[in-house]
Amino acid sequence: MKRNKSVFVGSIFSMAILSLALASVQGFAATDPLQSWNDTGSKKAIITFVQRVTQKGSADFVPPVQRIATFDNDGTLWAEQPMYVQLAFAFDRVKTLAPKHPEWKEQEPFKSLLAGDLEGVLAGGAKAILQLGMVSHAGMTTEEFEQIVKDWLAKAKHPKTGRPYTAMVYQPMLELLTYLRANGFKTYIVSGGGIEFMRPWTEKVYGIPPEQVIGSTIKTQFEMRDGKPVLVRLPEIDFIDDKVGKPVAINRFIGRRPILAFGNSDGDLQMLQWTAAGGGARFLGLVHHTDADREWAYDRQSHVGALDKALDEANTKGWTVVSMKDDWKSVFPAWNH
Amino acid sequence: MKRNKSVFVGSIFSMAILSLALASVQGFAATDPLQSWNDTGSKKAIITFVQRVTQKGSADFVPPVQRIATFDNDGTLWAEQPMYVQLAFAFDRVKTLAPKHPEWKEQEPFKSLLAGDLEGVLAGGAKAILQLGMVSHAGMTTEEFEQIVKDWLAKAKHPKTGRPYTAMVYQPMLELLTYLRANGFKTYIVSGGGIEFMRPWTEKVYGIPPEQVIGSTIKTQFEMRDGKPVLVRLPEIDFIDDKVGKPVAINRFIGRRPILAFGNSDGDLQMLQWTAAGGGARFLGLVHHTDADREWAYDRQSHVGALDKALDEANTKGWTVVSMKDDWKSVFPAWNH
Repeated sequence: MKRNKSVFVGSIFSMAILSLALASVQGFAATDPLQSWNDTGSKKAIITFVQRVTQKGSADFVPPVQRIATFDNDGTLWAEQPMYVQLAFAFDRVKTLAPKHPEWKEQEPFKSLLAGDLEGVLAGGAKAILQLGMVSHAGMTTEEFEQIVKDWLAKAKHPKTGRPYTAMVYQPMLELLTYLRANGFKTYIVSGGGIEFMRPWTEKVYGIPPEQVIGSTIKTQFEMRDGKPVLVRLPEIDFIDDKVGKPVAINRFIGRRPILAFGNSDGDLQMLQWTAAGGGARFLGLVHHTDADREWAYDRQSHVGALDKALDEANTKGWTVVSMKDDWKSVFPAWNH
Repeated sequence: MKRNKSVFVGSIFSMAILSLALASVQGFAATDPLQSWNDTGSKKAIITFVQRVTQKGSADFVPPVQRIATFDNDGTLWAEQPMYVQLAFAFDRVKTLAPKHPEWKEQEPFKSLLAGDLEGVLAGGAKAILQLGMVSHAGMTTEEFEQIVKDWLAKAKHPKTGRPYTAMVYQPMLELLTYLRANGFKTYIVSGGGIEFMRPWTEKVYGIPPEQVIGSTIKTQFEMRDGKPVLVRLPEIDFIDDKVGKPVAINRFIGRRPILAFGNSDGDLQMLQWTAAGGGARFLGLVHHTDADREWAYDRQSHVGALDKALDEANTKGWTVVSMKDDWKSVFPAWNH
């Protein structure tokens, strides 16, 4: 009896371990980390690449510290239509500030903006946009600006869907970010958007902490105010993190070359080229906006996020072009009104 | 017997676990993570701070993602006397390049430098130093520069000790970096030195990866050369990461405020002020060069690494001033010739 009991206890123990092991295998198999992706070539290319660089003994194995993945933001991780979210922020901010600036009623581009005349604003070209950008983004401390962005995002709604902008992110890309991190990758944003417009929310929405967010910057200045140090945002461009600026910024901020880069427009071409030019296995991806029903359909002729030269180069070089319509089961995450 | 055997096996098992547990406790107690520090107030202040911010339930607990620690490099992590290491690099580089520039024999500051007349070089002031800096640091690709730095460091010797410069680092600070990382801190360098002069060796020497090295930068430019993208280093200052520049760079690169900052000169004052001004527990440290026998003794009047205003502020505000002579058991790591 003693012996039997001992064997019995031993068996129970073994069975428990076996069940745990099975549960974990089944759990793993049941949970597809990229479940919002259709089983098309794009999904297979991603999984094949990740397996190549993470399997020990693989000729393409890359140590975890070198698994740098860079993602554009606008149009790659969240929607950029009908206009960049940051531009919507700038417009709203100008409207909020208008009561304190009666002179704007007679000054362009403010006059057109306050009259709801978007074409009038755009008629002022880059200079008008820059002017609106500086008025809305500079003149406060970095801490004040962070709060302004958070307050705006908590209330603003996308003009087409009525969703908060942070619910206009792409569910398949959220899964990709999580999948890469689970495989030892360090995920970065490298965006033409403002670095301090993104940092207040990227950790919560994408799981990307502020120190892994790279973007365009305006100059800031250290000052003592009432004995307390502050950084004041100045109305002066410091760096535009777009096109040839992206490899420059990647080198400055990270100091390593990515092994995976994902974009959606010609603004990402040089980042993809820079990533591709490193030795060893590389993954280059483009989100192609092909889904007029669920999102938008645009590429070569678009005034926002034009994808032309990068599409040609992707086709020539065999980069992965993700068709939103064909490769994604769903586009946006579930959202409770 | 069966029963006894079963009990015996059980006991063996329990004893094994107990031994393992004891070994790990004893192992921990036997290895002082800061063994090159004397048991003075500085060491106690460091340990007390780390315990306060890492113990769950502590009123001062800080989540790991927010445990950002920033360190100056020259004079804080490695020696900066008799001149900044990067200046020695620039001088050597000019000598190496001289055969291709016969015109330098008649041009200042090159003429003085090549004649070994340091005073003659310094007579040219900041402009002369900048000129030497640009000639030695610009005009090549980022990859070429990385190799130049590695090659130089492999051969160059400190003029006083004959050690390689990477053996002129401070052993107690190496232990501090390791101790902080073991407690969940992310350790950064925030230096007035060139970012690409540091990145080739900081991971190996300090355990600090390139993406956690912040420093001064010159402009770089994306170019296609023979169909391959390169970043070319231009002879133009981009950003000086010193004094008021340090908080600006910390905000730009990290986007979070450090909870610990360590420097050694007035160039670090604003970084310490910026760190101190955050809410919650903070550690502010200064390395005070008080050891003429084992290193150098200098502070308020020094032409390199002057410590004057920051020393006053440290004394007023109770920051930790580390006396190299009194607080450190050893200064440099063991080194085999």
